[in-house]
Amino acid sequence: MTHRPPLHTGRRRFLTASLATGGAMATAGLLPAAARAATPDPLITEVQPWASGFGDGVDAHPYGLPTEHEGDVIRRTVSWLTADTISSINFTPIHALDGTITPQGCAFERHHSGAIDLAKPDYRLMINGMVERPLVFTYDDLERFPRRTMTCFLECAANTGMEWAGAQLNGAQFTHGMIHNMEYTGVPLRLLLEEAGVKPEATWVMAEGADASSNARSFPIEKMLDDVLVAFKANGEALRKEHGYPVRLVVPGWEGNMWIKWLRRIEVADAPWESREETSKYTDTLANGTSRKWTWVMDAKSVVTSPSPQSPIRHGAGPLVITGLAWSGRGAIKQVDVTVDGGRTWQTARLEPQSNPLALHRFYLDHQWDGSDMLIQSRAMDATGYVQPTKDALRAIRGLNSVYHNNGIQTWLVKANGEAENVEIS
Amino acid sequence: MTHRPPLHTGRRRFLTASLATGGAMATAGLLPAAARAATPDPLITEVQPWASGFGDGVDAHPYGLPTEHEGDVIRRTVSWLTADTISSINFTPIHALDGTITPQGCAFERHHSGAIDLAKPDYRLMINGMVERPLVFTYDDLERFPRRTMTCFLECAANTGMEWAGAQLNGAQFTHGMIHNMEYTGVPLRLLLEEAGVKPEATWVMAEGADASSNARSFPIEKMLDDVLVAFKANGEALRKEHGYPVRLVVPGWEGNMWIKWLRRIEVADAPWESREETSKYTDTLANGTSRKWTWVMDAKSVVTSPSPQSPIRHGAGPLVITGLAWSGRGAIKQVDVTVDGGRTWQTARLEPQSNPLALHRFYLDHQWDGSDMLIQSRAMDATGYVQPTKDALRAIRGLNSVYHNNGIQTWLVKANGEAENVEIS
Repeated sequence: MTHRPPLHTGRRRFLTASLATGGAMATAGLLPAAARAATPDPLITEVQPWASGFGDGVDAHPYGLPTEHEGDVIRRTVSWLTADTISSINFTPIHALDGTITPQGCAFERHHSGAIDLAKPDYRLMINGMVERPLVFTYDDLERFPRRTMTCFLECAANTGMEWAGAQLNGAQFTHGMIHNMEYTGVPLRLLLEEAGVKPEATWVMAEGADASSNARSFPIEKMLDDVLVAFKANGEALRKEHGYPVRLVVPGWEGNMWIKWLRRIEVADAPWESREETSKYTDTLANGTSRKWTWVMDAKSVVTSPSPQSPIRHGAGPLVITGLAWSGRGAIKQVDVTVDGGRTWQTARLEPQSNPLALHRFYLDHQWDGSDMLIQSRAMDATGYVQPTKDALRAIRGLNSVYHNNGIQTWLVKANGEAENVEIS
Repeated sequence: MTHRPPLHTGRRRFLTASLATGGAMATAGLLPAAARAATPDPLITEVQPWASGFGDGVDAHPYGLPTEHEGDVIRRTVSWLTADTISSINFTPIHALDGTITPQGCAFERHHSGAIDLAKPDYRLMINGMVERPLVFTYDDLERFPRRTMTCFLECAANTGMEWAGAQLNGAQFTHGMIHNMEYTGVPLRLLLEEAGVKPEATWVMAEGADASSNARSFPIEKMLDDVLVAFKANGEALRKEHGYPVRLVVPGWEGNMWIKWLRRIEVADAPWESREETSKYTDTLANGTSRKWTWVMDAKSVVTSPSPQSPIRHGAGPLVITGLAWSGRGAIKQVDVTVDGGRTWQTARLEPQSNPLALHRFYLDHQWDGSDMLIQSRAMDATGYVQPTKDALRAIRGLNSVYHNNGIQTWLVKANGEAENVEIS
């Protein structure tokens, strides 16, 4: 704190640099801040009501909610997507968020038979099958085991699935909003399995939820002994009802339907279950009619969240922050490149540091917009060297029958008036 | 994923190891899980209502709240602490949280004249004083500057202040709950100051809030050009009204009253303001009646959040997770030691990795409790090598006149019945 960093007084200033493109700025109705200073502004020169009275006291909201001014930053549904709202999905408003943490309140939900109410005293977790000692744990039992805290993304296998056949949905919330990212606290499943004593011949573990759908998935035992958590906290507080309260599985890097909510049972075996959710669902049917199965890991992917159809540019040419999210189930994101000309030229975005490789990463590109149409894309590369493919490259290998695992590059057409559309380019 | 980690089937198991101390377990009414498996449990053997009907659909809660079962995890006030609730404070329920992120909904509030309602279209930020170009920014202007995202703790200077005179408040929420930790997104203030053009003779910067209290503080310009953010997002979404919506200052590592909420003005000068909030408040009066001032940085500190008076042990002897938070405004936490015998012996706790040194750190100690009384303390060491002092060591230097900057070691007496009390030991 004794060193004063050099001031960049000679550098090109951000907003005043825009004066050179004043025409486009005027089109959007925005005066550069440097010019505005010369204009009397009653919000500056006059005492405002919020500066002359009292606000809410500290007893007003024991548990607070967002201000009413942010009333549009909510989970949204697509009415035609499913037959009912019980076995359905909604979407995180990623176009309106920044940073990496997803608040629980607006983190997307996917239920197979609705979000159930299960109190901690009624909670039980059974471990059975190929173990030395079948066990039943209460919630209080789980709190006695060593804990870990880690931040992980959860992406639904169907995220971006409606885009296989071309640009379908006009907004990042709807194309890429089946994702959230929270800091989880829980017990490594490995410790519970060791408590039960896994028999040497065991090779698979099945996890099952307590809701009526009995959502159940099979896992190779290696994953369950590696980084899987039996989690009871998210973003510091208890899980929300819709995210599996009181206990869910956290399966870092793997598709969301495997993160079993309201976790009630772990069975150890020497073969997979071939449950409904891994035969009729969550397989990837290829062009020749055969299906890929056990496609658990979410490949590297990214999306520009702003500007985007629900987050248009509200100013003219000049400085523009292009930002988005990148993630991979196979390791940390090492680089994100952004293009504004449909892939002819790319610039490397800034990435914020992350404490866990399997968390969402936030990227920023500080761009000088010339005010003309842009074709904006982002392209992520993960620690394995894998580079996010184009949608056409994916289709060439997987065909058009898939619903799941579309990690192709997304394109937004951003027009001179600042509005954006979901488009495809070849 | 092809490597199967070795199974520790021979290691001492956690819960069954407790059988050796079965008397204490029975005292607390908890059977070890391994024994419970032999007892028919209707929650396992019978179909439960939540497994035989539908739960909430995905359109039930566009913005969700905690389940009613967690209704006690809220901000709380202490009625005798202040004359009214407008210029007052409440407390984060840190005893009931885990991990490091504090949800905005239960993150403590401190207002000097209440939480005001200020909409984005009405928001202005002025930069004036010793600058080449006085500027006024709208909210939309701020969104055009390069952004950073970082996680930081905010601690009120008065946190733990009531403990100067001895053990006062029975719960970590009340002794240490004037703290929260969020992931912030905003514009480095440095960029806005560069836009205005800081004159060479400037040495201080003042920041002022838009509420009626006009909370204002002076900062050495070096800090303002270093890591201070003009922030508009917390934990991914917009700031809440009570935390300064739409824009607040983030001052990593420094006391909370300097994180100006509803930020309306930045003035550049060659001397400090000596505002009310840095003369009559937020100075540390010593035993001889003189006061320390400019005590901006929060020193290394820690507290055990569980077990604690509001988070008693609900089981008998055997495995016990001791957990808490540690932080320092001077650099990352390098080590946290925990004692259960009032400081005679110490064990080093596990620390979870953190993306930012000036964020809260979570520590865990996995302890085999013998079922007798414990005097539990934690002691943090930061990257500078500074070690958190005892309260007595602090009092020897600072006397008993202080309200602020009590970072002394906290003691909980945890009794054989699992209940805990705030005590002092010498």
